Amino acid sequence: MNGPELRQDPTTKDWVVIAAGRAKRPHAFAESKPASSALTYDPSCPFCVGNEALTPPEVYRDNDTSGAWRVRVVPNKFAALTPDAKTERTEGFFRRAPGVGYHEVVIETPDHAGDLADLSVEHVARVLRAYRERQRALSLDPRVRFVIIFRNHGERAGTSLAHPHSQIVATPIVPAYMRRRHEIAERHFDDTGRCLYRDVQEAERADGSRLVEDTDGFMVFVPFASHVPFETWIVPHTLRPSFVLVTDEELDNLARVLRNSLRRLRACLGDVDYNYIVHSSPRKDEDEDYYLWHVQIVPRLTRPAGFEIGSHMSINTVEPEAAAEQLRAVRGEELS
Amino acid sequence: MNGPELRQDPTTKDWVVIAAGRAKRPHAFAESKPASSALTYDPSCPFCVGNEALTPPEVYRDNDTSGAWRVRVVPNKFAALTPDAKTERTEGFFRRAPGVGYHEVVIETPDHAGDLADLSVEHVARVLRAYRERQRALSLDPRVRFVIIFRNHGERAGTSLAHPHSQIVATPIVPAYMRRRHEIAERHFDDTGRCLYRDVQEAERADGSRLVEDTDGFMVFVPFASHVPFETWIVPHTLRPSFVLVTDEELDNLARVLRNSLRRLRACLGDVDYNYIVHSSPRKDEDEDYYLWHVQIVPRLTRPAGFEIGSHMSINTVEPEAAAEQLRAVRGEELS
Repeated sequence: MNGPELRQDPTTKDWVVIAAGRAKRPHAFAESKPASSALTYDPSCPFCVGNEALTPPEVYRDNDTSGAWRVRVVPNKFAALTPDAKTERTEGFFRRAPGVGYHEVVIETPDHAGDLADLSVEHVARVLRAYRERQRALSLDPRVRFVIIFRNHGERAGTSLAHPHSQIVATPIVPAYMRRRHEIAERHFDDTGRCLYRDVQEAERADGSRLVEDTDGFMVFVPFASHVPFETWIVPHTLRPSFVLVTDEELDNLARVLRNSLRRLRACLGDVDYNYIVHSSPRKDEDEDYYLWHVQIVPRLTRPAGFEIGSHMSINTVEPEAAAEQLRAVRGEELS
Repeated sequence: MNGPELRQDPTTKDWVVIAAGRAKRPHAFAESKPASSALTYDPSCPFCVGNEALTPPEVYRDNDTSGAWRVRVVPNKFAALTPDAKTERTEGFFRRAPGVGYHEVVIETPDHAGDLADLSVEHVARVLRAYRERQRALSLDPRVRFVIIFRNHGERAGTSLAHPHSQIVATPIVPAYMRRRHEIAERHFDDTGRCLYRDVQEAERADGSRLVEDTDGFMVFVPFASHVPFETWIVPHTLRPSFVLVTDEELDNLARVLRNSLRRLRACLGDVDYNYIVHSSPRKDEDEDYYLWHVQIVPRLTRPAGFEIGSHMSINTVEPEAAAEQLRAVRGEELS
């Protein structure tokens, strides 16, 4: 590269600084972190088998044939939003609204040490099915306007409990950021008659330099204007605005592709902290075919500093093409 | 509080979740961190006296009467943007622009261990003067559209070097986030004929519950919809869109008020990691009186996780009124 460059994210119109000259070599990112638990059971963990009474009553349960649970969903004990919030709406200069919503925890496995990347594809599919069923259920409450599903892996990604879990939050407003993304997609549809995310997919496929895999109904790539090193998107071939609409067959394929993507990251970067997010259309727009649900994986290799917090611009020190090349090179044993 | 509530930031229209029920008590935030250096000189530090040759040639220098420097500004050796970037502009679906700009480091003191909060008010004013002079100088390049000044304190805030320093970045585009904030202020001006930030100031003053101090030409408060615990804003009484326009007298007052604010944070939270940002209007809009420069202090007590990254909404676990009360209670010796 001839010095730093700016790249515009077509889905948000944000400019990202790609400054590979500033890069530390990837292994320099790795930080000493506490080894994950080797124990399959921790007596003080509220998500372990036998400690079910430590969580609020479950709202979803996936049993094996013996009646033992494989996946459980429970309300978050420290919920950011609750269905019965009594706070009042105020108007005027300082606008308040009740913190009404849902915050649930998906306990992905009874095994305290069973990381998602190590579960069977079939088990990952069960976790994904729990996501979809709960997103569907929460969307039935007319106060819910938006549902987001996410996973925090590692302390730098904001995890407080080691036992493998994901979270689902349902909010009574559409976050301004999601509204903007949605408006950009809507404008693109009005201008071109096409789905923006489909066009992103086709442009990435045509370019090819940032592709990681493109099979089984899903395309995996490192976006052109990745905000952070090794950011990875998983975008389905079949256009659906919301994750609530995915089929069982798609979930089975996604399970393999998602697990592959997490294993690729681990092969390149070690047991890196990351978040992933399942992005869907706002609840009322589930029929609008200009949006496309997708999974965004965000490794937490770098920390946002004053520039990023003050400008909301990102500085990415790894060229997306270089990250994709490394992820693509992971094969064989490391994936299966 | 009767459960969580949502509050809308009037300057961005973002909704923030205020979930004090989720709060850990403030002291629970504190993390073990390496003690800051007790050495006033580190032979390997490029910002220490005698090691000036380790930095690129300085672009600003403030000497004492003996000719020794008190504040230096140098180009960042690992610059995110550079004035001579040769990257090319591309149009079409994937839009690129040259990474042209500036990235400078303000070395605040020769003393390796001399934290900004411990400098004399007169010395802090010298640092602020360096900010203003460099922002003015960088704004002369017609390619520059936006200048942001920030300080990263502590590892969680993104610092890589212990020696006290701030940074200045000049970008060739207006970040989408700044454009949005500016548009919201412009719309407010069109609707009401008043500056939005002035109205925020007056509403905060009238309410009073989030005020920290309001003297010497500056108001300090914890914003109604603070994105993080103990977020603090310093807003001048005199309306100027950009920090390039501040007078020497204002800098002297800001020096005291800024130092007070950092000392208040330290008294409440210990030597907490933080970022602060000096926000200005984009360069071409320095005459538009609907924007108001200000300082935003962002303590790094919590880590954004998947929800925040995916929705760009914040969850703040400390009620802004409670944070303001604690900050306001710091008096006397701890400030002087």
